[in-house]
Amino acid sequence: MNIIEIIEKKKNNQELTTQEIQFVINDYLHENIPDYQISAFLMAIWFNGMTEREISDLTIAMAKSGEILDLSSISGIKVDKHSTGGVGDKTTLVLLPMVAAAGVPVPKISGRGLGHTGGTIDKLESISGFQTDLSIKKFIKIVKTINTSIISTNIYLAPADKKMYALRNVTGTIDSIPLIASSIMSKKIAGGANAFVLNVTVGSGAFLSHFSDAVSLGKTMVNIGEYNNKDTYVIISSMDQPLGYAVGNSLEMKEAIALLNNQGPEDLRTLCLFIGSYMLIAGGLVQDQQEGIHLLEEVLDSGMALKKLKELVKSQKGKISQIDHPDLLPKSKYQGDIVSVKKGYIDKVDARIIGEASMLLGAGRVKKDDKIDLSVGIILKKKKGHWVESKDVMATLYYNDENKFDIAKVMVKNAFHIVDQKPEDKPLILSVIDQYGIKKVD
Amino acid sequence: MNIIEIIEKKKNNQELTTQEIQFVINDYLHENIPDYQISAFLMAIWFNGMTEREISDLTIAMAKSGEILDLSSISGIKVDKHSTGGVGDKTTLVLLPMVAAAGVPVPKISGRGLGHTGGTIDKLESISGFQTDLSIKKFIKIVKTINTSIISTNIYLAPADKKMYALRNVTGTIDSIPLIASSIMSKKIAGGANAFVLNVTVGSGAFLSHFSDAVSLGKTMVNIGEYNNKDTYVIISSMDQPLGYAVGNSLEMKEAIALLNNQGPEDLRTLCLFIGSYMLIAGGLVQDQQEGIHLLEEVLDSGMALKKLKELVKSQKGKISQIDHPDLLPKSKYQGDIVSVKKGYIDKVDARIIGEASMLLGAGRVKKDDKIDLSVGIILKKKKGHWVESKDVMATLYYNDENKFDIAKVMVKNAFHIVDQKPEDKPLILSVIDQYGIKKVD
Repeated sequence: MNIIEIIEKKKNNQELTTQEIQFVINDYLHENIPDYQISAFLMAIWFNGMTEREISDLTIAMAKSGEILDLSSISGIKVDKHSTGGVGDKTTLVLLPMVAAAGVPVPKISGRGLGHTGGTIDKLESISGFQTDLSIKKFIKIVKTINTSIISTNIYLAPADKKMYALRNVTGTIDSIPLIASSIMSKKIAGGANAFVLNVTVGSGAFLSHFSDAVSLGKTMVNIGEYNNKDTYVIISSMDQPLGYAVGNSLEMKEAIALLNNQGPEDLRTLCLFIGSYMLIAGGLVQDQQEGIHLLEEVLDSGMALKKLKELVKSQKGKISQIDHPDLLPKSKYQGDIVSVKKGYIDKVDARIIGEASMLLGAGRVKKDDKIDLSVGIILKKKKGHWVESKDVMATLYYNDENKFDIAKVMVKNAFHIVDQKPEDKPLILSVIDQYGIKKVD
Repeated sequence: MNIIEIIEKKKNNQELTTQEIQFVINDYLHENIPDYQISAFLMAIWFNGMTEREISDLTIAMAKSGEILDLSSISGIKVDKHSTGGVGDKTTLVLLPMVAAAGVPVPKISGRGLGHTGGTIDKLESISGFQTDLSIKKFIKIVKTINTSIISTNIYLAPADKKMYALRNVTGTIDSIPLIASSIMSKKIAGGANAFVLNVTVGSGAFLSHFSDAVSLGKTMVNIGEYNNKDTYVIISSMDQPLGYAVGNSLEMKEAIALLNNQGPEDLRTLCLFIGSYMLIAGGLVQDQQEGIHLLEEVLDSGMALKKLKELVKSQKGKISQIDHPDLLPKSKYQGDIVSVKKGYIDKVDARIIGEASMLLGAGRVKKDDKIDLSVGIILKKKKGHWVESKDVMATLYYNDENKFDIAKVMVKNAFHIVDQKPEDKPLILSVIDQYGIKKVD
């Protein structure tokens, strides 16, 4: 096989064979094909797209480029959860214990944060001693014992995807639905679960700005799941303003603990119950969504979900006292309030700007090797639709560096848009996609 | 400026600024931008094309990436000639002496052959001692003295084009009109002439198969010429069968000498007079084509053109006796005839196959550093429209290696298509494009 001929084929919009796709991925990973040919190939894909079959083949080829975890020793249908990312998105911190407590095994492989959205691993590491660098054996053992565990992706999962993603990042070929979908799904499939619930976010704080792109990505991932006999559900939700009120690692950990104590913010609770109910459906535990939500509410009310979080923390060597007393989690030295300059309704809290301000304070990474500060971040006091008087506090910044605070406070102030008319309520959860199609959520 | 943003811009079909194009070319040449970003950029150009202004900017940026020859010390309008290549295309060997003898200075920078079409430099080197590796100073001096000279492109002309062409060759981005046009024109402009006559060939033996692509390439090059105040004429001609009867270096040299002796084949003579007449127009020597052809016929009839070839050969240290006695040019050890297996009309002599057979015999290069055999090649005995009886000789192969002959003879036999009906005559010269538009040739 010849890479130039394969580039020409894709360029001329002809369908590639399974063998051709495997050849490209394997020979690229083993450095028999140079970057400059793959980047031309990726740009041709950006323009011409791929058929469902090609996308599935690409996904499998990338998944098989490394180890595929064998979770067969864990009984039951293992359900993995993923989000395309959002500011203040701590759903995983809630869903892992909640769904595991309900009875579905949730083995989770997660990444660290990069850019304006945080990573679950970083948030959990605000608990002293919490270890995510476990062996696969240990990981499986914990899931067998308490129904959930979380490890960081420092193992050899889908290395071809990793190499290709780095190339896409510097060649203008990130924003391609076939490439995004196959990248996400290759890692999910390599993770070894039987079913996936994927949260695709859309809006100013998300990777995708347009609902139609979210639908296209969602449908593509569901198709890949079908090709691979992996039940896949996609939940499209809005990410125009941060989820919940807390942004930043230990602040988000606290908010997640509050939710498990039935004290969390409404939007976060709604989304967690919604995603969780589909994880129960995917896990074969309930027949429909109402039943799932009902079961999860019981799990929350009874304290079983919080208890499960403590089991998880204990299993991974974290300090349980910090769950019982969240005030023991890392705290910044300083706090500063952002006040409103006029009265009116909050029309918008720009999620991307809040995420970038939090990153600037030290909560997130610009480059992969940046050190982060687990204690800093932002607590919103007002969100969309709320009324503010002049000088009302809209947000509190938690910081350790005054210079960074000076810049971040201007950003956060600018993230709030205040208007005279009360803005229309827009739904948080927009649609669900499964193998039967797309359903609008009322 | 940021290359990723520039790739994104071209990908999203936005027009690039002059500065952006200069940045890409300069930083690529100086290795500040890696191949893998340029190949993605080139693929985006393949899909979205470029505006006339962008193409002109790209051409100038590549021309200025190296030396631009200063030919101002040569008086008169200097006219350069170029062909996109064809099998048996020895027009340059005829045009240089003919047009120079008529009074227009023709400084010519030429390449060696690669692939199935031969190079003018190689053909001239079948004359013993002929030197093309001259200094620019010497080159200019010869043009001043005898109105023409030819050197090989081993000087530093448009190095950015050279680098980019090598990348295009391995990334499926050769067949893009903006990239082909800017590549050709950057080298022409760097060559320093004032006006260009460009022969774009179309057909099985040419780089382009479709007339519409030839028109598009021609118009683009004329536009680039206009942007740079360089009078540019494009002549589109057919390259379905070889031009003339001879294919191979010394064989073509002989045929060119025969034409200058008024004994050459009709199609070659017609095309040379046609292209030559536009070179005289471009050079300001005549007002129209009829006048130009008339003048060139006089130059041929009077022996002035042949005399000019001898002056050229003498100036560049070649052996003049080989021009007076072409039998002294390199000869192969063996000859073998290809005969017809049935009677009928020749419907087609596939130029590409003839070119590849000649290359296989040793007349051409597969790779840049291959050594070639100046003595081998093919003399056609029959061309399109001719009648053959069974066992009539259709072509004679000149060779030095029996193994190569065994393969080449099968190829040459397959290049001839024999039919019962006499095929329709098709014109050799199709259209002329100048700054006023395109003109069909009757």
